[in-house]
Amino acid sequence: MKTEKPSITLLEYDSTGISEIRFDSIEESRNFTRSREKIWLNVYGLHDPAIMAEIGRRFRLHPLIQEDILNTQQRPKVDEFAEYLYLVARYFDYDAPARCLTSDQISIVLGRNFVLTFQERATGAFEPVRERLRAETGAMRAHGPDYLAYALIDTLVDRYFIMLDHLSDLAEELEESALTRPTPSLLAEINRVKHEARSMRRAVWPLREVLNTLSRADNDFFTADTRLYLRDIYDHTVHVLESLESVRDLLADLLDIYLSSVSNRLNTEVRILTVLTTLFMPATLIAGIFGMNFHEMPLLADADGFWVAMGLMGGAAAFMAASFWRRNWLKTQ
Amino acid sequence: MKTEKPSITLLEYDSTGISEIRFDSIEESRNFTRSREKIWLNVYGLHDPAIMAEIGRRFRLHPLIQEDILNTQQRPKVDEFAEYLYLVARYFDYDAPARCLTSDQISIVLGRNFVLTFQERATGAFEPVRERLRAETGAMRAHGPDYLAYALIDTLVDRYFIMLDHLSDLAEELEESALTRPTPSLLAEINRVKHEARSMRRAVWPLREVLNTLSRADNDFFTADTRLYLRDIYDHTVHVLESLESVRDLLADLLDIYLSSVSNRLNTEVRILTVLTTLFMPATLIAGIFGMNFHEMPLLADADGFWVAMGLMGGAAAFMAASFWRRNWLKTQ
Amino acid sequence: MKTEKPSITLLEYDSTGISEIRFDSIEESRNFTRSREKIWLNVYGLHDPAIMAEIGRRFRLHPLIQEDILNTQQRPKVDEFAEYLYLVARYFDYDAPARCLTSDQISIVLGRNFVLTFQERATGAFEPVRERLRAETGAMRAHGPDYLAYALIDTLVDRYFIMLDHLSDLAEELEESALTRPTPSLLAEINRVKHEARSMRRAVWPLREVLNTLSRADNDFFTADTRLYLRDIYDHTVHVLESLESVRDLLADLLDIYLSSVSNRLNTEVRILTVLTTLFMPATLIAGIFGMNFHEMPLLADADGFWVAMGLMGGAAAFMAASFWRRNWLKTQ
Amino acid sequence: MKTEKPSITLLEYDSTGISEIRFDSIEESRNFTRSREKIWLNVYGLHDPAIMAEIGRRFRLHPLIQEDILNTQQRPKVDEFAEYLYLVARYFDYDAPARCLTSDQISIVLGRNFVLTFQERATGAFEPVRERLRAETGAMRAHGPDYLAYALIDTLVDRYFIMLDHLSDLAEELEESALTRPTPSLLAEINRVKHEARSMRRAVWPLREVLNTLSRADNDFFTADTRLYLRDIYDHTVHVLESLESVRDLLADLLDIYLSSVSNRLNTEVRILTVLTTLFMPATLIAGIFGMNFHEMPLLADADGFWVAMGLMGGAAAFMAASFWRRNWLKTQ
Amino acid sequence: MKTEKPSITLLEYDSTGISEIRFDSIEESRNFTRSREKIWLNVYGLHDPAIMAEIGRRFRLHPLIQEDILNTQQRPKVDEFAEYLYLVARYFDYDAPARCLTSDQISIVLGRNFVLTFQERATGAFEPVRERLRAETGAMRAHGPDYLAYALIDTLVDRYFIMLDHLSDLAEELEESALTRPTPSLLAEINRVKHEARSMRRAVWPLREVLNTLSRADNDFFTADTRLYLRDIYDHTVHVLESLESVRDLLADLLDIYLSSVSNRLNTEVRILTVLTTLFMPATLIAGIFGMNFHEMPLLADADGFWVAMGLMGGAAAFMAASFWRRNWLKTQ
Repeated sequence: MKTEKPSITLLEYDSTGISEIRFDSIEESRNFTRSREKIWLNVYGLHDPAIMAEIGRRFRLHPLIQEDILNTQQRPKVDEFAEYLYLVARYFDYDAPARCLTSDQISIVLGRNFVLTFQERATGAFEPVRERLRAETGAMRAHGPDYLAYALIDTLVDRYFIMLDHLSDLAEELEESALTRPTPSLLAEINRVKHEARSMRRAVWPLREVLNTLSRADNDFFTADTRLYLRDIYDHTVHVLESLESVRDLLADLLDIYLSSVSNRLNTEVRILTVLTTLFMPATLIAGIFGMNFHEMPLLADADGFWVAMGLMGGAAAFMAASFWRRNWLKTQ
Repeated sequence: MKTEKPSITLLEYDSTGISEIRFDSIEESRNFTRSREKIWLNVYGLHDPAIMAEIGRRFRLHPLIQEDILNTQQRPKVDEFAEYLYLVARYFDYDAPARCLTSDQISIVLGRNFVLTFQERATGAFEPVRERLRAETGAMRAHGPDYLAYALIDTLVDRYFIMLDHLSDLAEELEESALTRPTPSLLAEINRVKHEARSMRRAVWPLREVLNTLSRADNDFFTADTRLYLRDIYDHTVHVLESLESVRDLLADLLDIYLSSVSNRLNTEVRILTVLTTLFMPATLIAGIFGMNFHEMPLLADADGFWVAMGLMGGAAAFMAASFWRRNWLKTQ
Repeated sequence: MKTEKPSITLLEYDSTGISEIRFDSIEESRNFTRSREKIWLNVYGLHDPAIMAEIGRRFRLHPLIQEDILNTQQRPKVDEFAEYLYLVARYFDYDAPARCLTSDQISIVLGRNFVLTFQERATGAFEPVRERLRAETGAMRAHGPDYLAYALIDTLVDRYFIMLDHLSDLAEELEESALTRPTPSLLAEINRVKHEARSMRRAVWPLREVLNTLSRADNDFFTADTRLYLRDIYDHTVHVLESLESVRDLLADLLDIYLSSVSNRLNTEVRILTVLTTLFMPATLIAGIFGMNFHEMPLLADADGFWVAMGLMGGAAAFMAASFWRRNWLKTQ
Repeated sequence: MKTEKPSITLLEYDSTGISEIRFDSIEESRNFTRSREKIWLNVYGLHDPAIMAEIGRRFRLHPLIQEDILNTQQRPKVDEFAEYLYLVARYFDYDAPARCLTSDQISIVLGRNFVLTFQERATGAFEPVRERLRAETGAMRAHGPDYLAYALIDTLVDRYFIMLDHLSDLAEELEESALTRPTPSLLAEINRVKHEARSMRRAVWPLREVLNTLSRADNDFFTADTRLYLRDIYDHTVHVLESLESVRDLLADLLDIYLSSVSNRLNTEVRILTVLTTLFMPATLIAGIFGMNFHEMPLLADADGFWVAMGLMGGAAAFMAASFWRRNWLKTQ
Repeated sequence: MKTEKPSITLLEYDSTGISEIRFDSIEESRNFTRSREKIWLNVYGLHDPAIMAEIGRRFRLHPLIQEDILNTQQRPKVDEFAEYLYLVARYFDYDAPARCLTSDQISIVLGRNFVLTFQERATGAFEPVRERLRAETGAMRAHGPDYLAYALIDTLVDRYFIMLDHLSDLAEELEESALTRPTPSLLAEINRVKHEARSMRRAVWPLREVLNTLSRADNDFFTADTRLYLRDIYDHTVHVLESLESVRDLLADLLDIYLSSVSNRLNTEVRILTVLTTLFMPATLIAGIFGMNFHEMPLLADADGFWVAMGLMGGAAAFMAASFWRRNWLKTQ
């Protein structure tokens, strides 16, 4: 799903309506003149530096910001400039066949009357927000671009809960396996999921800080009312982080369960060895005794001496088996 | 105990008396007119959004608050608005047959002259407070709604101590099992209780912060006198958290005890194997020696040669047994 | 040592002298009239609520304080009121036969010219302070009640050092056992001592905070000079906490030593099994070989064939033993 | 690559051009007169104290600074003086043959119109910056010495990412080995890489603090514009530290994988022992039984008695093998 | 090296010169009259309370300070009084034969024109400072007593680096032993070194805080210039603490290496047992088979039947050995 060709979409809107334009190249966009108050410009595909340069020039983005947008391994953060806020966050997706999480960097630039969003791949992350903007009632169009920015972040954070569910499901499957089928590859699997929980935490933790700052501090870009909503997503990120902690604790517990299953299996194996050895040893000794070449030995000449010997063997084995039975050693689990 | 039908109870009270009304539907409540100074409205069952909408409109609750009340997985918190405080906490219950804790979200809205409480199920959490309100002496009715809110939170926190006792009891039972009957399922059990201690901690920790804020900061909703009482519950939450830490440490220690019991069991098994093997080996060798076919061998022709051989076997076994006895290997524990 | 009957002692003192009165009931005390400037009222036994109520009324103690004094599982803390400071701390004692620590709650109320102390049992904790008050020189009587309160807390903190010594002694004994006699019950013992170190830490940690607050903040109850002394006990509590950390680290290390001793024991057992098995196996094989029934076999007809076979067995065993000797396997430690 | 002879390079530059001089001895430099506004003096090799003394006198460096420059085991830090800032950081390099990181101390002194850099060895760390200064366009020459200092630090921090890649590669190789070839030397290897991650963390953590301070605080040495760039490297150091945390977590996980691989190998070995023992035991018993010397025994006189016995042995072994097969014990992995 | 008799040395100095006096008793010192501006009084041996009392009276030391000087288990700290600063730190020494660290309390009282130092034993800790004071150039005598105090602390901190080297050397030796000769006593040794690293950390950590306070805060006792030097030792203590962290991590890693070596040794032993058992088992079975008493058996009557049987035994053993060879089981490491 690597974006072959960059794709630029422009949504103009105000309380009276909305219009959408899609540019196939950055040249097309040059002739465009603005007709509505608020703009949302979305860019998929960051490998053409000309696009970034053009947008940077139009919206007067600082060179450092342009660099950060193109470098898709940024840590979530917010940078405040006189004309705009620059915010980085991460969008997470679950790759069901590979059973792992993938993540994409989302850059959001919030100006007085515009929102710019940038990402490498067309993930469809923002589709729900687009639908709400296009909605007949237009409730969302009445709000400023700060509310749009809020809605975009909210969409990202909502996804984190879904990702948490995936991680929990994975952890539960692994627990089941650790209890019943402990194999070394399971350990690598546990560590892989731990690694994903960790990388998700690395995306959410700084975002929490960003939201805390934005929702508390007085700034020009978010109205007091929208800040209430930011506070709400802040609460959600705290919740996500706590749940991630739980998932990590669960995974750490899994390691204990795994190691303990391996130990138990060793115990079982040693026990089987012991039981079998001791069942056969007395019998082997008895056979050896009656195989001795003494000229005078009891029983040898008896007609049913052989069967007496067999009986002794059986009896010894039965006695041993009974004593193991009392200790519950005969069930292998 | 899932609430089939939402149930709305209204308590009006002032220092002179108290009246209780139960509405079967939200429509009924529309005709109600207020007759006393202070109101406590309690709602069980949150699945009918119409009720929430109606109450929200009457008491002018912010849409975000309404949403938070309905989303019953909130983290405990307090949000201060101009007209009211919104507070979320969790009520814990012990499910004896399943030997685990259950929890319900409690939402409390405290206004100048009203308290609203919301929860999904009719847990009876607030029954003691109702009794105190109805009491003849009316000491509690003389206080403002802030004291009622305090009393409600106090009831929740008192329960935490009972839950702690349940967790400690579970931990002690598990310790007993870990020392005497270490089975892999025990480990899963230990992790389950750890998980519950963790989820309880997640409910109490933020509540502690909430109470700290409310008891220190100057706000319009709690009088200085009630704040002293809040400080007192704050101390209780600190105490609960410390005890939870102790329970968690105990459970972590349990893991060590469990793993060590498993190790000891392995040692015991190997020891039994060693003892039995070495008791039979010399005897088997002696039998083998006298089973050799040399034409000239000592003892073979002796009349009591056989018994000499048996004596050698018994002697070797006795010697081995004695040397194990000195090492205390013969007791299996 | 459970107090059968509450016991109330009143010490009145000023720089000129001291008088002591012991009340057998709360009624007796009603007729008492004060004759000296400073008062120290001590109560042993808290199960009679009438006493608390009477004292509470006389000294105008807030209902919450009265409740806290009776609830003997409080966390150490200080509450400042207009007329007095309320301080909770814990007294520790070492129960030599049971080899464990016990603790009692001490409540201290410091007013402008009085000190009240409450505890469940007559532990004798404050006897040294009483002696100093009664002393001829009267140096202590010249100080205000704040200095008395300091002296009381100082007595408690000094005991913590003695308790630390007991814990260290226990830890050292356990280390000795872990190295030489690792048994599962030892692990339970280690965890018990860990638990006690933990509970002591829970008593000292908040007291440290209390002393930090009292020694720094400006308040009416402690003079600047006494605050210097509080600072000194504050330093002591920090020292106690660091030493407790050390004890806890030692105990955590003990677990490693214990587990490693168990592992080493397993190694030793497996080694003994291996040595014995391999000493007997070649001999058994040789016996088996000469027990075969081939018509033509070497040595069988030789006069000293039997002794050659025995020599082979001994030689094989000696060879095996020598190779184990070189590996240092023959010493069981 | 130990610098045999100290080497001093002087770059003078302003927006109009750049001139470079290389001094072979400190005497040569005495006759030098400055011709351009900004100076960058770089010294390789710190073992000649005369050089340091001369430079210290010329640029009036505080004796403590001179000492710190010569002591190449400093912790990264910044010291602010009236005339200059003194900054210490570390340059990391990867020694491919030895598969380990090496590090060198870099001292940077930033004055109003000069930058001094000192390091023990000529690592080529700053070559990219020199190239940018010499570039035709001269964009960099237009900036003040603060921007030069930023560029130097930026070069160091960029290298940290390359070092991270090396560490990750090492960790992955070790994981592969831990899963398939667990040897004790691997553990020493894991600890060595952990040690290097730790030493890198010790270099980056304080640098992060330095950059945080410089980018936030108002000081005379960095313009507001350059501080934006410092903020950017600050973000990079945060990123490096988080990635280092991940590497360390990975290495800690490796230990678990290693120990678990060793355990699994033990299980496998015990299993093989058990399987082989139990395959041969019943056969040995049967052989013993038919080797007994009873006068009357079944089968002995039968023509195909021998083959019946062999069949019994084979049958017993096959039965045992089949029961192990069902347990999946016959595959050694 | 316990000081038998207290020893009091007085150094008077100013920029023009220095004079040293040694008092054998406190009485002698009474007749002394001061002749130079700055004084350094050093006391070895604290068991004679009369000395402390006399000095305390002369320099008007607060009773608490006198008590702290005599109690040689203080935590490092600084107490500021109107007339002087009281500072406690620890001097560390390495006891080469016992391979462990020892430590002594150093008390320093810094007044406007005097420095007092107290320690239990004559460790020679301050000899280098005395040399510098006596030096011809007299650079140090020109500074105030605050610089003397700095020089004394600096000497202590410099020693910490030497102690660190000793700890690192011990850790490396232990690592070597853990890899090649894992014995239970090694674990006790590892824990002992951990314990020493811990006790050193307990001495350095609070000193760091003390130096941070002194170097930052404005106080009358240290000039701004000396504070720069204190800042420098502060940096050193940070460095020491970080290195101590590294040593502790190394020691924690050692435990893993030790436990893993023990595990590997168990694996080796089990492997040897398995190899030997399986080499002898088939041969024993073959001998048993040809020892059976069937009337008709193949090979028995053949002239070289015996050698065929021996060949079978050898072949089976060789086959087994070859299969172990392929698995690399025959090398015991």
